[in-house]
Amino acid sequence: MPVVRWEPDAAGRLRAAAMELYVERGFEQTTVAEIALRAGLTARTFFRHFADKREVLFGGSAALFDEVMRAVEQAPAGAAPMQVVAAALDAAAGVLGQHQDYSRQRQSVINANPELQERELIKLVSLAAALADGLRRRGVPEPDASLAGEAGVVVLRVAFGRWLTEPGDLELSQAMREALDRLAVVAAR
Amino acid sequence: MPVVRWEPDAAGRLRAAAMELYVERGFEQTTVAEIALRAGLTARTFFRHFADKREVLFGGSAALFDEVMRAVEQAPAGAAPMQVVAAALDAAAGVLGQHQDYSRQRQSVINANPELQERELIKLVSLAAALADGLRRRGVPEPDASLAGEAGVVVLRVAFGRWLTEPGDLELSQAMREALDRLAVVAAR
Repeated sequence: MPVVRWEPDAAGRLRAAAMELYVERGFEQTTVAEIALRAGLTARTFFRHFADKREVLFGGSAALFDEVMRAVEQAPAGAAPMQVVAAALDAAAGVLGQHQDYSRQRQSVINANPELQERELIKLVSLAAALADGLRRRGVPEPDASLAGEAGVVVLRVAFGRWLTEPGDLELSQAMREALDRLAVVAAR
Repeated sequence: MPVVRWEPDAAGRLRAAAMELYVERGFEQTTVAEIALRAGLTARTFFRHFADKREVLFGGSAALFDEVMRAVEQAPAGAAPMQVVAAALDAAAGVLGQHQDYSRQRQSVINANPELQERELIKLVSLAAALADGLRRRGVPEPDASLAGEAGVVVLRVAFGRWLTEPGDLELSQAMREALDRLAVVAAR
């Protein structure tokens, strides 16, 4: 059995075991019983931490949304919409940018399964809508709030993809800043 | 039976009848037999034109993609990425901007059904990927091709939403151009 390196707690061991099995056998072909066995725990313990085997991959969304929306609320008064979005992306990088190997495995599992791709897509669309909502609450009018919220998620997706695929020690926060700057150049009329 | 106003042909009558029923009863609750009956045609005729009742709503995607990709290919050599995207959005407006009442009905049907929302979402993500592919084939490097392709679909979605909800006689192509200009302002660093 491969050594579980990440987190000594039950949730972390279950997550690492699940990811190994999803990569080895595919998401569909893996059962909760197999995940628990690989982690040296019981299915009952699994269900104390995760609603189902899909939540192993998506359980981090709540923390991501919390951090992003906190950054939107706490950005300085008078910050331009894309400055607020930049602060939100920096917060997102703090949540997403910690575990590159894990993130690469997770992405390969998602890429192999259309249902998981849809779920990931819906998460990103929800994040864009939440960003736009947060900007409107700060007084940003339409269409600027929607454009900035959607543009923020475009930057997140492009920067995240680069961070996952580029060799070397690029930081996710740096990739986000570079993609934001590049979007400004590309979008200029 | 309501008068079918749009298109005298069988496909058009079936589409109009389907849309009436989707709005009246909901997409899930409508059967192909009911659509055919409302259109004064047979289920067999329905299946000559549409694979299923979902294709009534999404059968136009191929024409949209064809027009958009033709515009990308035919844009002048040396055009900046967002100029190519602007030409593509103009072509999209030519396809999407004809039937405002139909488009409003279609959107209300989609908004009421999560499965249709996912399908619409996947269509738009595929369009962004196709735009980025087309830009790469024109020699646009990454991340510019992805950023411009994704930004184009952000503009399309925001402009289309405005065109559907704003009273008055705003043209979709005009809404696209204004959203493109506004994105340039919002994205500026």
